[in-house]
Amino acid sequence: MGNASVLAAPSDAPERAAPGLPQPYLLFLGDTRESGYAKTAFGLRDWAPERCVGEYALTEADVTTGLTRMTPIEARSAGARSLLIGVANPGGTIPESWRAALLDALEAGLDIVSGMHMRLTDIPGLAHVAERLGRRLIDVRVPPADIPVASGRKRSGKRLLTVGTDCALGKKYTALALWRAFAARGVDSDFRATGQTGIMIAGGGIPMDAVVSDFEAGAAELLSPDAAPDHWDVIEGQGALTHPSFAAVSLGLLHGSQPDVFVVCHEPGRTEMIGTASYALTSIEEIVDLTMKLGSRTNPAIRCGGFSFNTAALSDAEATDLMARESERLGLPVADPIRGGPAFDALVASCLA
Amino acid sequence: MGNASVLAAPSDAPERAAPGLPQPYLLFLGDTRESGYAKTAFGLRDWAPERCVGEYALTEADVTTGLTRMTPIEARSAGARSLLIGVANPGGTIPESWRAALLDALEAGLDIVSGMHMRLTDIPGLAHVAERLGRRLIDVRVPPADIPVASGRKRSGKRLLTVGTDCALGKKYTALALWRAFAARGVDSDFRATGQTGIMIAGGGIPMDAVVSDFEAGAAELLSPDAAPDHWDVIEGQGALTHPSFAAVSLGLLHGSQPDVFVVCHEPGRTEMIGTASYALTSIEEIVDLTMKLGSRTNPAIRCGGFSFNTAALSDAEATDLMARESERLGLPVADPIRGGPAFDALVASCLA
Repeated sequence: MGNASVLAAPSDAPERAAPGLPQPYLLFLGDTRESGYAKTAFGLRDWAPERCVGEYALTEADVTTGLTRMTPIEARSAGARSLLIGVANPGGTIPESWRAALLDALEAGLDIVSGMHMRLTDIPGLAHVAERLGRRLIDVRVPPADIPVASGRKRSGKRLLTVGTDCALGKKYTALALWRAFAARGVDSDFRATGQTGIMIAGGGIPMDAVVSDFEAGAAELLSPDAAPDHWDVIEGQGALTHPSFAAVSLGLLHGSQPDVFVVCHEPGRTEMIGTASYALTSIEEIVDLTMKLGSRTNPAIRCGGFSFNTAALSDAEATDLMARESERLGLPVADPIRGGPAFDALVASCLA
Repeated sequence: MGNASVLAAPSDAPERAAPGLPQPYLLFLGDTRESGYAKTAFGLRDWAPERCVGEYALTEADVTTGLTRMTPIEARSAGARSLLIGVANPGGTIPESWRAALLDALEAGLDIVSGMHMRLTDIPGLAHVAERLGRRLIDVRVPPADIPVASGRKRSGKRLLTVGTDCALGKKYTALALWRAFAARGVDSDFRATGQTGIMIAGGGIPMDAVVSDFEAGAAELLSPDAAPDHWDVIEGQGALTHPSFAAVSLGLLHGSQPDVFVVCHEPGRTEMIGTASYALTSIEEIVDLTMKLGSRTNPAIRCGGFSFNTAALSDAEATDLMARESERLGLPVADPIRGGPAFDALVASCLA
């Protein structure tokens, strides 16, 4: 969220994210020396390793995903179809020093996939070379064209949406973990991505925060189409219904997703909403109440499946104790997907119940 | 709402709606023979007569606003600065048969203002002539560039927002009537427009349904800036918090507007929400409850000022009786701004209390 450049998005991009990205990827790390900036590449390695043939970095970089390091030509021979920019640096700009590497990738026969704020088409000369070679430059922050207005028609199949008490506390991670757990239990399911990193992992999706508001719910309807009765779409949530900046995104996504089940994501200890002028975090119960009330409009059978806590700041004992107490208090499973264990199994079972 | 063309809006328009439109207008009626299609012109005549120097129509037209009919050259001499397309026909297209008249307007020294779905720049040759003459082509459905993400910071001044149990039942009309009534009582106030007709009447505003969802609340913050403590912004509402297609627009507008007072607009007898697959209309009480709950996030002092009923389908006696009963039941004034009278005076007093 907060990407001003999406205002200029819909008409000037040579290629739109949907329906699918060219995979597998060669993960590009640029000249990154700060592992925190390479979280997109790490996310791909962790959640879609079968879609990554290796990594490529400039000699200045000292960050690695642990995947085989290769040149664009080697990656193309190994089956890669695109170079994916695996870095999310502050400002989202693509430095001049990466340009030669991006041109090499195009020459080697790879498309380029980016989730940066800066557009690939804004890099001098890149679009010209891509056109000459018949290669694609794909900015995944660009929503698909011709999104319809939502109809509210009930769709077949099952849907789960992760929601939150704030932004940036684990809605994507929770959705991915639940999707993987569903698959491990033999449940037919898809992860439905709504932000740039999720879209790269899934190979498709819609950047919901970049959609024009009149079409927000319509985009969510498009994202999780009719499916078999026992199929689950696990949908990555965005924002929070009580976030003073981004609630429009959250409500359009909730209405259009028509979730049967939602999981509330929360970070114990966080007291203020990110990016706001001192807005206190909403309570978990209030998010449950609002999600039930607003979500029942398009799916009267909506229910809360449980809670996903981001307990990275706590010790094992503290986290286990807190989650047990909160589960008792709230009457539903509370788990940290990263810690897993019986609590997470209980959350998965509750969602599928 | 429902304008697919706004998806392509932000980057390709030669001119954006904000901050102000070139006024006064010459109202253009095209070849319209159906008065319902000329409601934009009638709205301008009724709500901003001081901004209209006259009307202009093709010989085929038999609709009139009652204003002096004049040519573009005559209008320019009378002070007009733009030709305003006062027609909203089905599909929002600008027929080929109007092209010569639009070119005449440019040649006469007028800019052109349009709220149609079709862009003025999509009319063959128009942009070229406008550029040669230094004239502007203004599509008011294009939001301003560089809208910030909402901060949630409390702004000074007072704000009123009209909300509704559905789309298209009088939120613009109610806001205009309240604004006019405030002014008649000596209250310093501005009408803040959020849709194309309102923007033409006000001479500025933001088409909220065309704003990218991440910036929806930010656009609403931009629309009603800090003001004197006793100044009122009367803000035109959009959609409904329970409309399965457009609630994202409504919630972003509510959060960003930070209203002190809201008025619920309703049409007695309407049973289903417009444009949906059989969604029952939400009750008035539920809209009050949701607006209080969600609106208190950015303005804890929010309150309901009363109710505006669209009773066009009822007789005088039926309307008076119904509104009296509903006012008794709901505990706040109920009025039809078009009927006015003591009930409307009570609504105005309740809003300003």
